[in-house]
Amino acid sequence: MKAWLSKLNADLSAAPASPEALALDELSHVLPDLTCKAETVPEMGESYRIRRDADGSLILSGGSTGILYGAYALIRLVLAGEAIPDSLSSAPRYSLRMINCWDNADGSVERGYSGRSLFFEGGKLHYDPLRMRELGRLMASVGLNVLCINNVNVHFPAQLLLEDDLPEAAALADLFRPFGVRLMFSVDYSQPMRHGIPTADPLDPAVQAWWKETAARVYAAIPDLAGFLVKADSEGRPGPFTYGRNHAEGANMLADAVRPYGGKIVWRCFVYNCRQDWRDTKTDRPMAAWDHYAGLDGQFADNVILQIKHGPFDFQVREPLSPLLLGMKQTNLAMELQLAQEYTGHQIDLYTMIPMWKELFEELPAGNIMSLAAVSNLGRDENYTGHPLAAVNFFTYGLLSWDPETDASSAVSQWIRLTYAFSPADEQTLSAVLLSSRRTYEKYTAPLGIGWMVNPHDHYGPNPSGYEYDLWGTYHKANRDAVGIDRTAKGTGYLLQYPESLQQKYGDPETCPDLYLLFYHRLPYSFRMKDGRTLIQRIYDDHFEGFAETEAMAKALESLPFPDSDREIISSRMSRQLHNAKEWCDIINTFFRRLSGADDACGRMIYD
Amino acid sequence: MKAWLSKLNADLSAAPASPEALALDELSHVLPDLTCKAETVPEMGESYRIRRDADGSLILSGGSTGILYGAYALIRLVLAGEAIPDSLSSAPRYSLRMINCWDNADGSVERGYSGRSLFFEGGKLHYDPLRMRELGRLMASVGLNVLCINNVNVHFPAQLLLEDDLPEAAALADLFRPFGVRLMFSVDYSQPMRHGIPTADPLDPAVQAWWKETAARVYAAIPDLAGFLVKADSEGRPGPFTYGRNHAEGANMLADAVRPYGGKIVWRCFVYNCRQDWRDTKTDRPMAAWDHYAGLDGQFADNVILQIKHGPFDFQVREPLSPLLLGMKQTNLAMELQLAQEYTGHQIDLYTMIPMWKELFEELPAGNIMSLAAVSNLGRDENYTGHPLAAVNFFTYGLLSWDPETDASSAVSQWIRLTYAFSPADEQTLSAVLLSSRRTYEKYTAPLGIGWMVNPHDHYGPNPSGYEYDLWGTYHKANRDAVGIDRTAKGTGYLLQYPESLQQKYGDPETCPDLYLLFYHRLPYSFRMKDGRTLIQRIYDDHFEGFAETEAMAKALESLPFPDSDREIISSRMSRQLHNAKEWCDIINTFFRRLSGADDACGRMIYD
Repeated sequence: MKAWLSKLNADLSAAPASPEALALDELSHVLPDLTCKAETVPEMGESYRIRRDADGSLILSGGSTGILYGAYALIRLVLAGEAIPDSLSSAPRYSLRMINCWDNADGSVERGYSGRSLFFEGGKLHYDPLRMRELGRLMASVGLNVLCINNVNVHFPAQLLLEDDLPEAAALADLFRPFGVRLMFSVDYSQPMRHGIPTADPLDPAVQAWWKETAARVYAAIPDLAGFLVKADSEGRPGPFTYGRNHAEGANMLADAVRPYGGKIVWRCFVYNCRQDWRDTKTDRPMAAWDHYAGLDGQFADNVILQIKHGPFDFQVREPLSPLLLGMKQTNLAMELQLAQEYTGHQIDLYTMIPMWKELFEELPAGNIMSLAAVSNLGRDENYTGHPLAAVNFFTYGLLSWDPETDASSAVSQWIRLTYAFSPADEQTLSAVLLSSRRTYEKYTAPLGIGWMVNPHDHYGPNPSGYEYDLWGTYHKANRDAVGIDRTAKGTGYLLQYPESLQQKYGDPETCPDLYLLFYHRLPYSFRMKDGRTLIQRIYDDHFEGFAETEAMAKALESLPFPDSDREIISSRMSRQLHNAKEWCDIINTFFRRLSGADDACGRMIYD
Repeated sequence: MKAWLSKLNADLSAAPASPEALALDELSHVLPDLTCKAETVPEMGESYRIRRDADGSLILSGGSTGILYGAYALIRLVLAGEAIPDSLSSAPRYSLRMINCWDNADGSVERGYSGRSLFFEGGKLHYDPLRMRELGRLMASVGLNVLCINNVNVHFPAQLLLEDDLPEAAALADLFRPFGVRLMFSVDYSQPMRHGIPTADPLDPAVQAWWKETAARVYAAIPDLAGFLVKADSEGRPGPFTYGRNHAEGANMLADAVRPYGGKIVWRCFVYNCRQDWRDTKTDRPMAAWDHYAGLDGQFADNVILQIKHGPFDFQVREPLSPLLLGMKQTNLAMELQLAQEYTGHQIDLYTMIPMWKELFEELPAGNIMSLAAVSNLGRDENYTGHPLAAVNFFTYGLLSWDPETDASSAVSQWIRLTYAFSPADEQTLSAVLLSSRRTYEKYTAPLGIGWMVNPHDHYGPNPSGYEYDLWGTYHKANRDAVGIDRTAKGTGYLLQYPESLQQKYGDPETCPDLYLLFYHRLPYSFRMKDGRTLIQRIYDDHFEGFAETEAMAKALESLPFPDSDREIISSRMSRQLHNAKEWCDIINTFFRRLSGADDACGRMIYD
């Protein structure tokens, strides 16, 4: 991230006067030989157009932020050695392109693997203004425009962002404004109760009045605040269920409060029973969001956006698209991704996400959602992302949130060129490593969509039964004969939440794509895969391959001319990844061999 | 504990002048009608004799502390309604009857379930003097005479007990002295390195000199200090292995330092590889202590005592006696018990230990050891032991450390009578609950000696594979056919560390006592037990019985007229125990059913 940023070297020691001014400043620094004129067309907003004048010079037109995005697009092209087309028009596919930080007021970061918070310390806002501008530029350079700075789990004293700490929050918003970045705050649904109101019931007039007054006060200080992000009735957070209200009632009340200022309520749909009894086979956690929300389609206010995790569980390596993303046509939706590698290697293991995101868009009509959000992978580490190569996820997320048609391979290559001065062969090596890293991680971890065989709480490293007898609704129920949960019509019925075509595709284990087999089906170890292998052999093979591929990735990375600072981190994390991959491979194979009794057909070592 | 203590009501607001003075004071308060003369016979030491004078009055003779122990023996007898014999002589079987507190200087207690430390807070000694005298009396009243106040894991700044904080430690020792209680300190083997000495090598003259100077300084302040307790080369603690020295060399160096003052070095033998690879089947953790120490028999100084945990693992519900306790005839040994219910229910679940201890003494010739130690179950809770009924473990440990022949049932009855004013029927009910509680806990937890199926780190609640792929050397290797580790000559050979008679007893699964079967043997689920049941059916039966017995215990306790303060705690903890027992029962049964495929012969519910 530092390396990529270092190419953008306009002086940020003071605030840029405006996005346009910054755009021209960046262009003159980065591409001094380029003749480029800017033409502000306010009604173009975030869109931009690049064309050539008769004299060959470039004309960049757009709204204020559009010009900035256009400038960065140009810089990306030129620095990556790509040709500037004679004419180029671009508009963002999604209006809110959000980063959600899970930063706590005490300076810790929930699921943060890049050091402490960039924004908080000791219960207060606490930041380096220069770094904030760097972050603003970082976001703008890939087209991101909304930054929610505090954790969706709003632990005290983060509530004070709307109260005593509002002036400091407004100063932070000022810092980001020239970069086209608007702040957002996660709010505590029970916050009125901090002020003598005995309830947080959304239909209570005192509650409504408190939120209206609060919105007025907050928007007076930060007129362009993007809105509020809400995690309600989820994993212990307060919400409308406490008062017998549904989530449309709950969200619409807040929406009324921020509507006069153009604010949005981004309402997370991560609602499920996190106190499930493992003995209960009737409840199937992936069904929960649909059960809570699908019936409310059409009832949400026009400035409410339901933010839905991409899969029905929680950011596992392999999940189908959440059925809610396909089934709420009358509601504004955002899809939530997670850059923070919570279940995907903690920014120790390599895990480049864009191939996974592209798979999601294969089933998600681009128009079903109007915004994208991603849980941040940033922190106070010098390189922002802990692992230098994890920056590719932030970069490509930005490009994809602007244009979901973005090609994965091109985006990764562009990031490599902007970050490292590699030969074409080395670039190709690194690109291959990054593009394959998710599939490799998938191979050595939980098999074929089953997920969750991870150490509880921490979520790094294997623990095949770690969640098996726990409260979280994430079971595989592997026994000596079979593994998995039947989620078809004959089982829990989860699959019925999907359109007919997807029910067809996934409902029959004979046609269900291999990688989703154990998400949808309970199958005997002797089940024959499409290629003739048994299920158990496929599990063994994937795990041995996953580890072997990790060894090959380690060799490939060793061969690359990384700058010393990056090389050291990459190399030490790769040795931890090798250890982790070996543990996963051996433990998962042993776990299934103990159950199934099946030997590996190739005679490789599976421990007793 | 409070209830029992409340019977002892001599005024402790000031220090007793001497043990004898305290003895007479207690007698005159508790048994005002008893005519009793004390006769100090210094050479009798801790022993006492009670006889009747011609006029019928009692004469209590003994050394200074002997008179105190005799007085408490009398009080126990009379308060428990037992007859005073015409003549009674008693001497303690073990010279050091120790309590080891795992209290940290920060006020936390490792494996403490009774609140924070009685001795420390904020890095310093911090205590209520009255409570210290109460604790001294508590120990004396059951014959205990050594109190090690700080954790064997000596975290900074506990080292300062030998340095800056020595004057405060000496003041604490003064408080305990009238109760016949001598302090002991856990020491950090690397402590010389805090003082500019570049090594802690026991053969290094500078190290030896530092410890000699330190011992001189410490004993000048606390002349009757019992000695130092050492956990070396264990679970990350420093020790002589770092310098290529064995533990005799390591311990004897310290022994030289404290010898001039009559001090002892109590050297814990809890040494094993806590970084074992789960794939390694050659290493069998229970063998470690023998491998480290047996060859050193005869090489330890005469003021070194090896303190050996009662079993070869670590305070599991069912372990055989440590072979070291049978095999080091030329060495002073102490057996270590654990009152703190680390693996035995956290003072939430009922677990009365004396039946277990009595089993140990069945195989342990009483003369093999010369001291007993027990990890404390005390803390700052009002009742000292968290659960009021956990006090029975402290009480009966004291009696047993004085006389290992003490009868379990009588000791428990005595404690009940001293603590509660119950009818004989209620006393019988409570006694039956307490005496059966360990077996009940054993039934619903890990089966037949296999141990360790517990939540890692915390050690409460079931997790059948929680340690299975971890570093700690505690594996069951259950698969679809069989469970357990073969520790006979044909397996790891652990059993060969025992005398021939025990090898015979345990070596053949046909003759091995059922409750040790899975400690020593790897057996198929179809194995036929002596009563004709299969192993798997026995596992199911035990678990269903264990839960049913817990329900019966809960009912029995509900029927008893506990004082309100105790009733509330007992009742709320029992409801937690019921939940825990149900979880254990169902999870262990499900775990084994998933593996074995066997249904319950009685058709009871085992969940999928």
